[in-house]
Amino acid sequence: MNADEMLSLSPVIPVVTIHDAARAVPTARALLAGGVRVIEVTLRTDSALLAIEHITRELPAVTVLAGTVCHASQVKESLAAGAAAIVSPGLTDALATAVEVEGAAWLPGVATASDILRGLALGFDRFKLFPASVVGGPAALRAFAAPPAASSGSRWDATWSSTTSPASAAPGWLPKAC
Amino acid sequence: MNADEMLSLSPVIPVVTIHDAARAVPTARALLAGGVRVIEVTLRTDSALLAIEHITRELPAVTVLAGTVCHASQVKESLAAGAAAIVSPGLTDALATAVEVEGAAWLPGVATASDILRGLALGFDRFKLFPASVVGGPAALRAFAAPPAASSGSRWDATWSSTTSPASAAPGWLPKAC
Amino acid sequence: MNADEMLSLSPVIPVVTIHDAARAVPTARALLAGGVRVIEVTLRTDSALLAIEHITRELPAVTVLAGTVCHASQVKESLAAGAAAIVSPGLTDALATAVEVEGAAWLPGVATASDILRGLALGFDRFKLFPASVVGGPAALRAFAAPPAASSGSRWDATWSSTTSPASAAPGWLPKAC
Repeated sequence: MNADEMLSLSPVIPVVTIHDAARAVPTARALLAGGVRVIEVTLRTDSALLAIEHITRELPAVTVLAGTVCHASQVKESLAAGAAAIVSPGLTDALATAVEVEGAAWLPGVATASDILRGLALGFDRFKLFPASVVGGPAALRAFAAPPAASSGSRWDATWSSTTSPASAAPGWLPKAC
Repeated sequence: MNADEMLSLSPVIPVVTIHDAARAVPTARALLAGGVRVIEVTLRTDSALLAIEHITRELPAVTVLAGTVCHASQVKESLAAGAAAIVSPGLTDALATAVEVEGAAWLPGVATASDILRGLALGFDRFKLFPASVVGGPAALRAFAAPPAASSGSRWDATWSSTTSPASAAPGWLPKAC
Repeated sequence: MNADEMLSLSPVIPVVTIHDAARAVPTARALLAGGVRVIEVTLRTDSALLAIEHITRELPAVTVLAGTVCHASQVKESLAAGAAAIVSPGLTDALATAVEVEGAAWLPGVATASDILRGLALGFDRFKLFPASVVGGPAALRAFAAPPAASSGSRWDATWSSTTSPASAAPGWLPKAC
């Protein structure tokens, strides 16, 4: 799976924090029953890797992304647990190297133009605006989507994965984000 | 031209995106007739480099800056087309190296204090706040202008190039930005 | 002193800019009389290092942090003047190396998730949100506090040093920041 395939799985990807691995499969099964075939399990809890392992083993119809991947070592651990791709809150050289070594699809978080230019220079051109509502929301998407069209034919059209707290704000995001 | 000379060309620099190279010279001529002697042509279109070439050849009275320079390779291309200096949305090591190799004046975009400190460590001390209205506007200018006065005589007084969408917001910017 | 000890000195640390070194000790003595036993002296003035020297010599009961440390060379200068620890507006590799070489406690400023991940990869896990009110305020603290809990036992609980202009905003900060 590459980053484009990851982003085309669903217009909205639920982010799930699982505190008890025993609840992982029931949670994923409930989401699947509701039509959700992709979830991002955050590595914010000690149960996260086990949760990814259980869901991918029991529910092959669900694609699991590992989220909140902050340390390079977590890339390999997440993939070993069954994660189909990696999502990070930020973009660092260390994470870029780790996903490249593993050949994993990666959606790095960015918040500034420098983050984006650094990502482009490293060969990545699919980004997640994070924390989206804090760093400028749809206005940031508009500003960042404009600049980096290249002059040399290698233009890129950013697809953004955005998260926003109040569900009522979603309409403002979706036309841009999906 | 160095960065200070670039910033002293005009209190406000219009940013122009040219989709049709044939319209480059008429556009620049109209701006010149209105008293504008410096424009930033963004590399957001395939016509941008040709537009820079046409304007600098036909209207030597107009100084052209290449804007939205995202990739190191675009630095040399922009200068070859006739650009007098380079403007970028962000600050990366790769771009810093490219402008240094070419001996070009550079106005890198910054959004955070870390961007600024990284720029200072690389020997740059003239910055563009980008996207200005998204990353804090005049309040960000005030916060960033304060800290990095050095203790050792090498103090710097930041001159900022700021962009803001609604013209009505300009008065809030100008006392700081110009 | 390590970063945790620095942050536990006081729930709020006053940031002081001293333009006249002769006023350093009287200012610190007045703060001490009011119960303030730690102050951050910013390196924004030529008097700053001398001010740190005077305060630490005359008032050993006061802990002085050097603030606005932007250049690697300022780390050693600040410690030599008597500063107990280093506070910076941003986080760069150069500053990280300098504080490591000197064995100094450091509170680097961060504004984005990439800043934080870079800091974690360099071995630092205590941060200052800067400029706090510009980069998202308490909402940024909440967003940043959530992600980087590790899966492997090396979890971190961020303690933030926040600054905010209107005193009326303090209650919104304190439950999170202190």
